Parts: sequence; structure tokens; C-alpha cells
Amino acid sequence: MANRVDEILGWYGADHPGVLKNLRWMLESGRLGGTGKMVILPVDQGFEHGPARSFAKNPAGYDPLYHYQLAIDAGCNAYAAPLGFLEAGARQFAGRIPTILKLNNSESLLSTSDPKPAVTASVEDALRLGCAAVGFTIYPGSAERNEMYMEFREIAEDAKSVGLAVVLWSYPRGSGLSKEGETAIDVIAYGAQIAAQLGAHIIKVKAPTDHIEQAAARAVYEAEGIEVSSLADRIAHVVQSTFDGRRIVIFSGGAAKDTDGVLAEVRGIAAGGGFGSIMGRNAFQRPKGEAIELLHSVMDLYLERA
Amino acid sequence: MANRVDEILGWYGADHPGVLKNLRWMLESGRLGGTGKMVILPVDQGFEHGPARSFAKNPAGYDPLYHYQLAIDAGCNAYAAPLGFLEAGARQFAGRIPTILKLNNSESLLSTSDPKPAVTASVEDALRLGCAAVGFTIYPGSAERNEMYMEFREIAEDAKSVGLAVVLWSYPRGSGLSKEGETAIDVIAYGAQIAAQLGAHIIKVKAPTDHIEQAAARAVYEAEGIEVSSLADRIAHVVQSTFDGRRIVIFSGGAAKDTDGVLAEVRGIAAGGGFGSIMGRNAFQRPKGEAIELLHSVMDLYLERA
Amino acid sequence: MANRVDEILGWYGADHPGVLKNLRWMLESGRLGGTGKMVILPVDQGFEHGPARSFAKNPAGYDPLYHYQLAIDAGCNAYAAPLGFLEAGARQFAGRIPTILKLNNSESLLSTSDPKPAVTASVEDALRLGCAAVGFTIYPGSAERNEMYMEFREIAEDAKSVGLAVVLWSYPRGSGLSKEGETAIDVIAYGAQIAAQLGAHIIKVKAPTDHIEQAAARAVYEAEGIEVSSLADRIAHVVQSTFDGRRIVIFSGGAAKDTDGVLAEVRGIAAGGGFGSIMGRNAFQRPKGEAIELLHSVMDLYLERA
Amino acid sequence: MANRVDEILGWYGADHPGVLKNLRWMLESGRLGGTGKMVILPVDQGFEHGPARSFAKNPAGYDPLYHYQLAIDAGCNAYAAPLGFLEAGARQFAGRIPTILKLNNSESLLSTSDPKPAVTASVEDALRLGCAAVGFTIYPGSAERNEMYMEFREIAEDAKSVGLAVVLWSYPRGSGLSKEGETAIDVIAYGAQIAAQLGAHIIKVKAPTDHIEQAAARAVYEAEGIEVSSLADRIAHVVQSTFDGRRIVIFSGGAAKDTDGVLAEVRGIAAGGGFGSIMGRNAFQRPKGEAIELLHSVMDLYLERA
Amino acid sequence: MANRVDEILGWYGADHPGVLKNLRWMLESGRLGGTGKMVILPVDQGFEHGPARSFAKNPAGYDPLYHYQLAIDAGCNAYAAPLGFLEAGARQFAGRIPTILKLNNSESLLSTSDPKPAVTASVEDALRLGCAAVGFTIYPGSAERNEMYMEFREIAEDAKSVGLAVVLWSYPRGSGLSKEGETAIDVIAYGAQIAAQLGAHIIKVKAPTDHIEQAAARAVYEAEGIEVSSLADRIAHVVQSTFDGRRIVIFSGGAAKDTDGVLAEVRGIAAGGGFGSIMGRNAFQRPKGEAIELLHSVMDLYLERA
Repeated sequence: MANRVDEILGWYGADHPGVLKNLRWMLESGRLGGTGKMVILPVDQGFEHGPARSFAKNPAGYDPLYHYQLAIDAGCNAYAAPLGFLEAGARQFAGRIPTILKLNNSESLLSTSDPKPAVTASVEDALRLGCAAVGFTIYPGSAERNEMYMEFREIAEDAKSVGLAVVLWSYPRGSGLSKEGETAIDVIAYGAQIAAQLGAHIIKVKAPTDHIEQAAARAVYEAEGIEVSSLADRIAHVVQSTFDGRRIVIFSGGAAKDTDGVLAEVRGIAAGGGFGSIMGRNAFQRPKGEAIELLHSVMDLYLERA
Repeated sequence: MANRVDEILGWYGADHPGVLKNLRWMLESGRLGGTGKMVILPVDQGFEHGPARSFAKNPAGYDPLYHYQLAIDAGCNAYAAPLGFLEAGARQFAGRIPTILKLNNSESLLSTSDPKPAVTASVEDALRLGCAAVGFTIYPGSAERNEMYMEFREIAEDAKSVGLAVVLWSYPRGSGLSKEGETAIDVIAYGAQIAAQLGAHIIKVKAPTDHIEQAAARAVYEAEGIEVSSLADRIAHVVQSTFDGRRIVIFSGGAAKDTDGVLAEVRGIAAGGGFGSIMGRNAFQRPKGEAIELLHSVMDLYLERA
Repeated sequence: MANRVDEILGWYGADHPGVLKNLRWMLESGRLGGTGKMVILPVDQGFEHGPARSFAKNPAGYDPLYHYQLAIDAGCNAYAAPLGFLEAGARQFAGRIPTILKLNNSESLLSTSDPKPAVTASVEDALRLGCAAVGFTIYPGSAERNEMYMEFREIAEDAKSVGLAVVLWSYPRGSGLSKEGETAIDVIAYGAQIAAQLGAHIIKVKAPTDHIEQAAARAVYEAEGIEVSSLADRIAHVVQSTFDGRRIVIFSGGAAKDTDGVLAEVRGIAAGGGFGSIMGRNAFQRPKGEAIELLHSVMDLYLERA
Repeated sequence: MANRVDEILGWYGADHPGVLKNLRWMLESGRLGGTGKMVILPVDQGFEHGPARSFAKNPAGYDPLYHYQLAIDAGCNAYAAPLGFLEAGARQFAGRIPTILKLNNSESLLSTSDPKPAVTASVEDALRLGCAAVGFTIYPGSAERNEMYMEFREIAEDAKSVGLAVVLWSYPRGSGLSKEGETAIDVIAYGAQIAAQLGAHIIKVKAPTDHIEQAAARAVYEAEGIEVSSLADRIAHVVQSTFDGRRIVIFSGGAAKDTDGVLAEVRGIAAGGGFGSIMGRNAFQRPKGEAIELLHSVMDLYLERA
Repeated sequence: MANRVDEILGWYGADHPGVLKNLRWMLESGRLGGTGKMVILPVDQGFEHGPARSFAKNPAGYDPLYHYQLAIDAGCNAYAAPLGFLEAGARQFAGRIPTILKLNNSESLLSTSDPKPAVTASVEDALRLGCAAVGFTIYPGSAERNEMYMEFREIAEDAKSVGLAVVLWSYPRGSGLSKEGETAIDVIAYGAQIAAQLGAHIIKVKAPTDHIEQAAARAVYEAEGIEVSSLADRIAHVVQSTFDGRRIVIFSGGAAKDTDGVLAEVRGIAAGGGFGSIMGRNAFQRPKGEAIELLHSVMDLYLERA
């Protein structure tokens, strides 16, 4: 098993050993430790959607310590959250599970057609809190995208210089894309490629649909016969688009679903060669026992493919 | 009683002992010292509303020394003001009462739909003046919100690095919110969550109404049966939304009211588990004797619940 | 007499002795030295209005040395000017009269509804030129006000750290105010309050009219019976609004007037407890002898009230 | 078992969570993971004594990768070495075992009565290499001691600010001490106290003899009846002298010995409450199989006392 | 009288007007104001010789405020002292008399053949305290001289850049000079030249004897017939050696003497064209009335020559 982790770390030959240490920490933690697969618990919805929409369904989640413990008890590879949530448990949980500090976040009290998150924490915060990585969100396609890319460039450069891994959430959106286009296969694959080109170590995208948004892309998909009918096909295409599988790309499930829906999607991700899932609302909005059960089922699907 | 302060300080495990020292100074000062409850006197209305609107009713308040003495005589936990007011008494009152330097302020000679305060003082000023904390205001929902969040990020990081506590006024407003929405329960709870995620130690919000502003939130409030009919219910929901009670959240009363109105509101805040009140105009616009009497009555309501 | 200067310096307890040294230098210079009253000669009109509008009437004023000598010969407390004018005479007049370096200036080749001056000199320049103080202009009510406040914040922090006094010209204007409103009593008092809250040591405002600009203010002025019918009343209200008289607030006369007009206004300022006058065009556009005579008459009116 | 680690981390309340993460990493790694006991492999003898004296006995040790693997295979808590040795294996072994970068080192081509090591690596190197800690050596009693203390002060401040743990080798020596005095119980206890007062997280001293070097100390040891006859007594006295057991203090065995000699000494250290051993030459100068066997026997002695 | 000050300031054409302002402040203060002559009160003996040796004779001098007031009451041009003494009265006496902050000081608990003072305050301190100048001591001839010259170079550069004048105490001593040689005419003249070449604005040396220390110098003094028999001759030679009179050079009297001795020496200094005296122990060790009387007599001797 350890060989797979070594193989993955071999793709990051330009990075300091300090970065590899933190990638290894994440890759060897939890129930999937050593398989090269990852399931990460992210809890930034309090900032992104507001507290009641995030936590009312399972009110234990109002407590920041709950999520640390859930991630540990479920055997996740890492736990990702904004500054406040991480600070609230950083001392008690120091070193118990790899953490990812989300450095930018958006709130939804105002909705704009070309959104941009605010930078809300720093690389120094991540060192201070003992994190394994920093996380950042870009919105490819937004009129503000270049601002985000340039903020990311500085942050990624700083993080790498001090040995932190860099996780990039790439969520295409903005006035140039239709709502359906945000998860179109061509757009998702493009967003993953941009993230990889920006130098991310771990890339997180949404599971793609079979919609193709851009005419220029559609022509190529059709001419070259790129297969996008099944989720597994599409995942394989995204993995290929992320440096032919030489970067860790993981998938989010989006809005809360029923258990069958979640597992069906993960089955497709795993079948397509995805490296794992980042699962927030589908985990922390369930009662803890159910959440752990679901996360274990998800991990089992990845174990089958590891 | 000291145990409650220790318990509260235990929530801030990511912070320097220097920050804890200043949080403790505020929590153990004044008539509520040691109870974990706080009543703070803020006087930034001279800048925010102009001098006559602020001080003509009780002209003693034109004198900056008056407010220091009022806060001390009434047994407040701290006194908050902009640079000029603090500088005017910083030498005479050095170390007599914890002070909070408001680092940004808005004037009202020009009204805009998406407001943003100006940064008017620095973390270095707060050190120079011997303050316990810096204060900052954000307007979630304003089109300028990201600017404010990013200004705050830098200020909070600096302040924490030199051992100052950070108090965040979170006042949702801006073109995306109705006037009624600014104090809607969903919006106030969301504003408190944002402040906590941004890493504030003490959070100040307005007392919420039972209005629900956002459709997506309303659906959750109704589906989950979140109780918002009484003020105590709403306060409890805001406290829960502020890291399940693991961050100090205090409430402002807003515009001047009669004594019964003030006390009725505080009774609801105390019943809901609020950590205290920040009371400006209702205090300093009354004659000093009446102001102290009112503040003592407010403190008594918190003492009953401590 | 010295006691009055000591009393005034006692208001600035948050400042370094270095700042007090320079405040004392200004307060003890010239014919009003030691009285706590000040008459300052400002000559920034060359930048603000152009040379001919400023100096053609008394062409001696084209020469920068003329103004240094005029301020000395008339017994002014200080001389204020932009970088170029001060540099032109700094060596010859080093230490002969306190100087105030105006750090920002507006030219009038372009007129905008929301103006903002350019920063044209630095705190380091003021040290190099041996100045007693730096001067800065803000336009409360301009859409650019926050930029000005934030520029001032940095400049004032730097100036105070090296022992320079800070003089703030507070001139409300901008798209939110009527022309008449720029000198309305409520607006002038508000502008003085803002300047004091921003941490200025000496505040310069225009002499106010009895117009009240803002509806919210008018309601208070009427309810509280604030007297604004005579100039002396209005000056007293502005002095009160400037930390109840605990900050030096001086008044400009604005456009050139006849001698009786000037003296009538100064009489009102002195009667209302104003700390002095800043008098430019009414001084340097008169022949030198007349200018000195007028300035002496102005000083005499303050001496009567000292 | 985890409780003991939490208890130990509770002693470091002034440190960032980032430091706690790295202390936990060391405390939970290897065969002693979770017991609060530590065995560390240090290999700085190549620099300190030269290659042949260090590695000729077991030539596998010329290869820097050998020591990484030995530390892992033996189940050590950490591996400590100078820059070159760590750089040589940092990529292959990134994250597999906590590493400690020795930031200063002495060579023995010149012998001086008041020695001082050269600083040979930096905190930035430690971040880049993914280390858990930095290591530093002081020689209390050397005429150069103040230089070392001041170098350490800066390094420790930097390391703590970026979340690295700090290990301090405290080896009294210099013109003021006899050779026998370097390991005298009073001197070793004093050296441990100095290291703790300088702010080290983990302190490494030599096993003390029953010699008492300083007359003033001897008087107290005799008057107070401090028991120093057995090694266990002396170890207990050193642990007491290191903040009454509230700092991790570990012991080195010094020159190579036979197996019985090593185990007898460790038995005394364990019996006296020492936190562990740092064992270099006695490990890497044996053939690998024997080395692992010895290290396991050492660990077993600590496990009996955990 | 003002013309002489202008003439003197004309020698400092490379300096900022800010420096000239402070030189003028000193040259125009006190009873000798405007004459180009100076009498300065220095009180650094508390640090240099210990408190009892300095203040027991006139115990009023233990109080730092005493010396400020003595310098003012006697009409001195300036008061010079180390950080602590200036800080103790800086607020009360801000701007009342020019002060000189001594930036380095020697204590006499350890006597070394090649002494060097410690730097004990900074240029920033001088700005903060509102000083007119910084003072610094060099010991030409000490083995540590280059360290002092290089410290001075940085300090002088900084001080000049922020408009502070620079006063340099040049006291030859060290293993290369005999005790008698420390005040030899060739050595004093050489020390004055070094101070001027280092860029000092005001130079303080001891009154020279007719001893000639260095053989090479003696040869020249004899060959060129340099007159050194009377004190006035020697002073004239020192003034000549200090850029032919184009730098301000003042003289210290050294150890306490009787009044006739003091005045005889000053008569010689004045006759030789010295710019003034710096008089510490002879002033503050006398009762205040006598001290003022003596200082006035000294000033009168300079007034005769002005």
C-alpha cells in the first residue's frame, strides 16, 4: 500500500520535502491511509450558506469541536474549514488529524453574477494552527477570476516555501457560464486543468454532468469521440485532464442527497479513477452515527478500487 | 465565578497567552467581573452620527473624559471608542478600565447603498494607548464586504500576534438586504457566524427581530421548526449560531429607548443566554446618575443569569 | 500666561513629549505666544487656485521668501505651505518660525463633485525641513472621504511617532452636501468632531453659518434648543463639538474680504471661544504694511479674550 | 495512553497549536508512541568527530539513508541530524518519521577550552525539509555561552512562530568546569534548568554522575540531604530540576558501551522518571540487526515504566 | 546678534534645514542666545561615576527634574543627559529648553585599559522625547575606537536624516596614551579634528594642557613654532584644528574645582575663541543658588567676547 503513496509523491518532484511530508500525512491518515484514495470532511458552509441552513438539520454541528471529532471518528484523511472553526479546536485536536485551512470564503447575503471570495486567513495562520495544507477557491469564468488566480499565486508560493500542501477548489461560475454549464463536463475538465496549471497539489471539482457548455469544446468532443455518457467516463476524462492522472483530483457531491444517491455517485467517481471525495453536508447534516456509516460506505467503495 | 472565566478562556486555545490576558482583563473588570457576562460602553456616535445628534441631549458627553469616567463609575467591563476619544483620556485613565480601540468608522455626511467604514486607527495605536482589544466593523451583505473582511483579516492577525483581543461588530446591510432584513433573525445569526469564522474573539450583533429575510433560510427555519417567536428564543439561536456558545456574543440595543424598553430587551438577551450588552446612546445620552442606574439594572439582569 | 499653554498641552496626554515640544513651539511663538491663541499664515493658494488668482493682487507674494518674512514680521504663530514654498526658504528661515508642511493639496484645473486632494509631500519631508507640524486636508461627505481618512491615518501615525504635531483642515464637501451645506453649523461641527476623532492635534474649519443641512441634525438642534443665531454661539458650539474645548480648533475666513468684514468675523470667533484664525488671502493679498496691520488687529481681538 | 500525551502537551500552554502538532507527532511515533516516552536516533557524529571515528565500525552508516531507515525500522520517535544528512534523504523519507534538524554543530579539528558550535542550518531549512523540530546545542559554562544563548533565543522565537518544536542539547563545558564536572549532578541539573528557562520544549542532557562540582552547590546538596547516590536518584533530581517534570527531558548515553552497560544506564534513567534516551553511537555503530535489538530492549525498559 | 547665528549656520551647508532648526534652537536659547556662544549643562555622571559620587554633595541632584530646572533657571543653551534622566522630565519640560540625548554611556564598575561606552538610547528615542540633538562619546586611541566610530557613523547618519543635531564628545584615552596624554594639546587637537571629520555639528573636548604626547607631533609643533604656552593659545589652536573655526567646539572643565579655578579656565577658553563650556559637576554639585551664580559668571565671560 505504501508504494502507492510513494508513487503519488513522486509526481510532486518540484516541491520541498516539507510539502511531501504534509501530503503524506494526509495520504496516510484515516481508513483510506496508504491507498492513495482520500475522503475529506469540509465544513465551510456556515460561512458560505449561513448557520441554520448548514447546521439546523443536525444541531450538533453548530459546535466546531463536533466536526473535528466526526472527521476523526469516521476515519477521514483530513478536515477542512475556515479560520474560526479551526481555531476553535486547534489546541485540543493538535496533530490528531490533518487539517486544511480554507484561506478564502464567500458569504451569500449578497448575490452577484461574477462572484469572488474574500481572503479570510493566511499561510501564517496555517502554520500557527499546525495545518497540513491551505485551501483556496477559484471561480474560473468569473469576471473576477484573474484577481483570484493572482491571490492564489502568492498564497501558493508562500505555502510551498514553508512546506504546506495546497488544495484548490475549482468551481467555474460567473456571467460567462450558464447555470447548467457550471458542471458541464468540458467546463469541469477545464477548471481542473486550470487548477493543475496554477500549481495546486490537490484539486477539488464538482462531479460533472454530460452537458457540454462551450461550442468550441463540443466540436472537439464530438470529433474526437470523447466518451462522456457515464459518470465513470466523465470522471476518467477529468482525471486525464488533470495532468493525465499525475495530480490528485477529488470530487464534491454538492447539495445533500439521500444515501443511495450519494453512493451511486461515488461508485461512478471510483470507477472512473477519481482519487476521492470531499463530502460536507451529506456527512455533517446526518446524525453522527449515520454520517459515519455513510462515510464508511463511501470509503469502502474507494477501497474496492485501491 | 472565576471558573466561568477559565471555562470561557478555554475556548480560545489557538490564541497566545497574551490574548487570554486581555480577554481575562475585560471579563474580570467591573460589576460583572468574573461572571462571564459583559456590559461594554461604546461611544463612537460622535463620528458615526455627528456631535449634536450624539451629545446635545446630555452635553457632558461632549467631553471625552466623561465617558471614561462613566464606564468606570457604572462598573462596565470595557469602554470602546475611536482614536480621538481614547487618546484624549489615555494618560489619565491608563490601566483603570479595559479599552477597545475602534479601528474603523463611518460618518454619515454621505449615505451610500453599499457602505464601508474607513480604517481610522491601527493595531500599533492600540498598543501605544494600552488597550485590551481592537474593535472593527463589518457590513455583511454590502458590495464592499470583501474589502472589509480582508482589512479585518490583516488587522486581526496583527492584533493577535501582539496579544490584543479582537472585537468584531457584525452589522449586515447593503444593497442585497431590505431595511427590515438588517435585523432579521436569519441575517443576524448569519452575521454572527461570519464574525466567528473570521476569527473574532468577541462578537457584537444587533438584537434580532422575528423577520426572516432569505427564502433559502426561511425554508430551513420552517422545516426544522427553529423557534424565533420570542426574543429569548432568537438570542439562543444566535448564541448557538456563534459556535454553539463557544464564542462571546454580545448585543447592542440600537437607538435610544425608554428605560422599560431597554430592560425588556436585556431581559430577553439574558434569558436567551447572551453574554451581555453593548450600550451606548441609552447610557451616555441620559444624565450620569440615570445612566449608572440603568446600567446597574442591566447588569443585575445578567447577574441573575450568571 | 505659560500656565495656559501647559493646560492645553495637558489635553494631549497620549502624545510623545516630542509632539508637545512642537505644539509648545507654535503656542509660544509670535505676538500671541503664551496666550493659548493662534494666528497662522497659510499660503497654499498658489497650488489650489493658481498663481495669478493668488498673487497678482500683491505681486510680492510670488516670492516664497515673502511669506516667511510676512509671517515673522506680523508675529504669527506659524506659517503653513506646500512642499515647494517651504523648501524655497527652509534654509534661510530654519528655526525662525514654526512651519507646517501641507502634505496634500488640490488644484482647480479640474473640478469634480467628489474631490480628493493629492498627497504631495511626506512626514520625512517635514523632518528634513525642520517643521513643527504636518498639515492635511479632508473633505468629509465626499465619496472619496474614506481614502482621505485612511491616508491621514497613516500620516498621522507616522508624524506622531517622530514627534511632529498634526494639523487637520476639515472641509466638508461632495455630492452628498449642498453648497450652502458646506458651511452649515451642523456640518462644520460634524467635520470638527471627525477631525478630532481621527486624532488631529489642531483642527481648522470654516466659520459656520446658521444653516442646518441634515434633517436628522435639525431635529436635535431644535429639540435641544442649541443656539446658533450669532456667530459667537456657533463658534462656541463648534468648540464644544471638538471634545468640549479639549482640542485646539481654529477658523479660516475664506475668500478675501474688506477689513471690517474680517474683523467682525474674528470678533465673533474670539467671543465664541475659538482658539484663533488661519488667514491667508486676507493677509498676503494686501500690501505688506496693511497685511501686518490687519493681522495685528486680529491678534489684538484674541488678546482681549486670552 | 493518549491521555499521557495530552497531559504532556498541556504543559506547553504558551505555544501555538502548530508546535503541539509537532510535539504530538514525535510523541505518537514509533514503538513508544503514545506512552510519553521517547527514544531518538541522533547522527551528528560525522560532523562532530569525523567520518571514520563515526562510521568505520559499521560502514553502512556512511550512507545517510541508512540512518533514516534504521530509525524507522527500530521504531524511534524521531531522527536528528545536521543539514546534509537530512537533505540527503528528505524526499524519500518525507513524512515517514519525525526529523529534527540540528541547527548548530562543532567539528573537532580544533580543540578550544571555551568551545562554541557554528550555526549551520536555519529554521527555514527545517520547514523546507518537513522537520518536526529544530535542535540546538549550548555549552553552559563556556566563555562563549552568552553568544550561544542569544543565538538560541532568536532561533527558538522563529521556530515557535512557525510551529516547529525546539529541542535543546545542554552540555556544560568550558574553562570554568573540570572534565569530571561536565557530568556532575549539580552541573547537569543546572544545565537542564538553563535549557528549560531558555524555553526549550525538549531538553537533552547527559546522564549525571554523583560528583558535585561547585562548592556552593555541594553545601546545599549536603544541607538538604539531596539523594544522588543512585542513577535513579540523580535522574529524578534532574527531572525535578527541569520544571518539576513539566518539560520533556531525555538523556544521552555518551560514548559507545557494551549492551549491558547501555541497558543498566537506561534502567536507571527509566527508574528515575526520565522521559527517554537519545542514542547515537551505541545504535548506528552496531550492525543493523544488533542495533535494532538494542533499541528495542531500551524501549522495553521505558515501556515497563510508562 | 542674530547675524552671528546665521553666520554659524552657514557653515553647515550640507545639512537639512531640520538640523539647522535644532542648531538655531540651541544657539538662540538661554542667556547666551544669539551670541554664538553656548553653555550646556550635562548630567551623565550618575551613569558614569555612580549616584553618590555624583549627587551626594548636593542631594537635590538625585531628582531628575532638578537638572531640567537648573538648566532653565541658569539660562543654559541646552541640557544633556542619558535616556532615563530625560524620560523622567520630558513631558513636563517638553519644549522649554533644548535637550541633548546622550546615546552612549560608560559605567565605572569595571575599569579597562581600552574602554568603550555602551549604546544606551536611540535616535528614535530622541525624536520621541523632542530633543534638539543626540550626543555621543568616542575615545580616540582606544583599541575599541573603530567600533565607536562605526556606531557613530550610523547614528549620525540617522540623526541628520531626521533633522537632529549631532554633538560629539571626543575624549582620547586607551592603552596607547599616557594619562597625561589624554589632555595633551596635540591629542586634544587631534581628537577635535577626528570629531569634525566624522561629521559632528558640535564638538566637545577637554581643555588641553601644554603637554605634547606624540613625538611626531612634538617635532612639528617645535619646527612650526606653534604656541601652546597659555590656555588661550591652546584653545585657539584647537579651534583652528576644528576646521579653522567652522565647527562649534566647546570645552569641558572636568573634575569639580573651586570657583576661581573654574572662572580662570573659562577666561582662557573665551580668550582663545572657544565657543563655550559644558559644565556638569561644577554646576550641579553646588547648591542651586551658587550654581546659578557660577554659571552666570561663566556666561558673562563669554558675553564679553561675543
